[in-house]
Amino acid sequence: MHNQTNEHTLRRKRVQQTIITLQADACIITSPVNQYWLCGFIFDGYLLLYPEGEGLLFVRRPAGITAERAIGIRKPEQIPSLLRKAGLSIPQRLLLEADQLTYSSTTRLQAAMEMPELRNISGELRRLRAVKSAYELDQIRESAQIHREVYELIPTLYRTGMTDLELQIEIEREMRLHGSLGIFRSFGEHMDIFMGSMLAGDNAQAASPFDYALGGSGISPLLPLGANGTKLLPGMTLMVDMAGNYRPWMDDMSRTFAIEEVHETAREAHQLSIDIVRAIEQSCKAGTPCADLYLLAEKMVAERGMQSYFMGTTQQAKFLGHGVGLEINEPPVLTSRSKEILEADMAIAVEPKFVLPGIGAVGIENTYIVHDYGMEKITLCEEEMIVLS
Amino acid sequence: MHNQTNEHTLRRKRVQQTIITLQADACIITSPVNQYWLCGFIFDGYLLLYPEGEGLLFVRRPAGITAERAIGIRKPEQIPSLLRKAGLSIPQRLLLEADQLTYSSTTRLQAAMEMPELRNISGELRRLRAVKSAYELDQIRESAQIHREVYELIPTLYRTGMTDLELQIEIEREMRLHGSLGIFRSFGEHMDIFMGSMLAGDNAQAASPFDYALGGSGISPLLPLGANGTKLLPGMTLMVDMAGNYRPWMDDMSRTFAIEEVHETAREAHQLSIDIVRAIEQSCKAGTPCADLYLLAEKMVAERGMQSYFMGTTQQAKFLGHGVGLEINEPPVLTSRSKEILEADMAIAVEPKFVLPGIGAVGIENTYIVHDYGMEKITLCEEEMIVLS
Repeated sequence: MHNQTNEHTLRRKRVQQTIITLQADACIITSPVNQYWLCGFIFDGYLLLYPEGEGLLFVRRPAGITAERAIGIRKPEQIPSLLRKAGLSIPQRLLLEADQLTYSSTTRLQAAMEMPELRNISGELRRLRAVKSAYELDQIRESAQIHREVYELIPTLYRTGMTDLELQIEIEREMRLHGSLGIFRSFGEHMDIFMGSMLAGDNAQAASPFDYALGGSGISPLLPLGANGTKLLPGMTLMVDMAGNYRPWMDDMSRTFAIEEVHETAREAHQLSIDIVRAIEQSCKAGTPCADLYLLAEKMVAERGMQSYFMGTTQQAKFLGHGVGLEINEPPVLTSRSKEILEADMAIAVEPKFVLPGIGAVGIENTYIVHDYGMEKITLCEEEMIVLS
Repeated sequence: MHNQTNEHTLRRKRVQQTIITLQADACIITSPVNQYWLCGFIFDGYLLLYPEGEGLLFVRRPAGITAERAIGIRKPEQIPSLLRKAGLSIPQRLLLEADQLTYSSTTRLQAAMEMPELRNISGELRRLRAVKSAYELDQIRESAQIHREVYELIPTLYRTGMTDLELQIEIEREMRLHGSLGIFRSFGEHMDIFMGSMLAGDNAQAASPFDYALGGSGISPLLPLGANGTKLLPGMTLMVDMAGNYRPWMDDMSRTFAIEEVHETAREAHQLSIDIVRAIEQSCKAGTPCADLYLLAEKMVAERGMQSYFMGTTQQAKFLGHGVGLEINEPPVLTSRSKEILEADMAIAVEPKFVLPGIGAVGIENTYIVHDYGMEKITLCEEEMIVLS
């Protein structure tokens, strides 16, 4: 059985090295995702890490937490006196997750901690998390395997006359029966989503306020993304990009289905997507600049004159993919201006997609593990367009 | 057809009155929920409201937004020069949603806006939203009606030998087929949830880090809440508290089911919950202090010696209910220390629940609209415990 404690210790030491590099006195972890990464569980409270030692947990909830080093508190204002009692220093330069913690919570914590100088550790934590352990990579592989099993059921779930939403609901049920956690963790303030995205026909052209590869108008102005109740009609394509959240560490995979029949234009654009991922598989490995992946795709798209349909029409995402892990959008990001370099043990999703007016979205998305020798594809699911009938 | 534009105008004027009362120059709305409330749609950007006029929308995404008064921007740093060009003043005292906006986004926006003095308008907006319009109340009534239709299907979805999670998955599917948006909007940093909560047997005793009435350990440490795969066995109770998100404005309703047979203890505690809501229905109306609702329940619980089981065992929530609306946890909050007063056109959920070791959670939750003459119950669904067999 895998030694989780050792995982947590190694992760904590990487964060502590960052505290030292940033010349800070301590950091406080408050986000569920980073609490889980560093402790293995989520709590309402504060993980305080000094550059050395195991750190302290100040816990508001749950009551009666049994973790080592956990101290029950009602409010953050209690922390300094508890530290003094334990003979520990009050940090003067404090790292916080400023990209996740609200302004109100941050200023309250700053006052409670006797007004230390604050710096942001959110980006550094995301960069640390981008390079995975062997255990984490196995989690992503396992998720991808179940993801494949669920996608392979899609032809059996389809019935003539269904809407995109009706089919999505049956896929959601299979996802849950296969262990999907339901909630879909993302990073950032414009990443609302339910269990994924299904885009049929011209709904794939609808621009969304959210920061995903494609849009869709959704079924309510409260969640303008994805399926909108489009009836699945012959000749349409259906882009399925449902969550791979079968493990805490997630994979990401999209596949395209054609309703009853395949347009020649759709087939060609879909083949271009496959050609792009093949080219990336053959040319990329640890050390490849992330921008190169985007530029390679852009060049292949331009050679076939498909720029107007690449990653959308009315709104085009200028990116080709992203890291995956505990959150669906981790570093690195694959854009033309990315300064990041692929590193061994990163997990990245590559998603060259096209939106064809009058037809729908086509293309595939695969998740890869980056190695020194090349790219390991882990979403081992049929890539050709599958006809639903 | 309902005049949505007029709704938005009236809501905006209430916010503008708050800007004046707080002696601020302007406010900027960034949260999806308040953008939806004030504009009817969500965007990635900023709604800037002065004390007078219709306000301005600075929109990053979606591309090509067609709303009036919308100005496309790439970044907040463009806002001051755009305001100067339009002959408008740069606010010196700015209200922001500091309980929702991250520290990073807030400090970036503050710098972009030339370092105005910042104040928090999150709480005031929540207080404004707590008193609903006739249209909003009708939305909640409609949601409650569909919520009832879905709950009435539960006996037909149950099969002997199911787990709590297997039953929940079938309920989730019916929810989606009945129009549930899926995502479940809540306020605050410790409110992770999927589509609701189902608690069977002793899983109802599991303490959670999240700020809901009851806990449950969930199926993963990444979401320690609700169903955990407990097999539904004779004599257990099952508390169903799934989302009422069939409209943007939501209701909240819990019902208890007994597996095969009903323990006498469970019947008595469940009846006490019903007695408490009856007493509240008869004694409360606009003008009643919110603390009185909690104290009335607490007194009835003490008279029957049920304090050890009220709102949990290992971790007890010291509250009886909460407002509902665009978010599932709106003001007022029904606690012994609440300073709030029930106002006409508030919508509140009242949820006296008991957790019985060896049996499970029992009790009900109803949503009420507060009137001058009393309380209107809108969750018109059988309240007695229903036996699943």
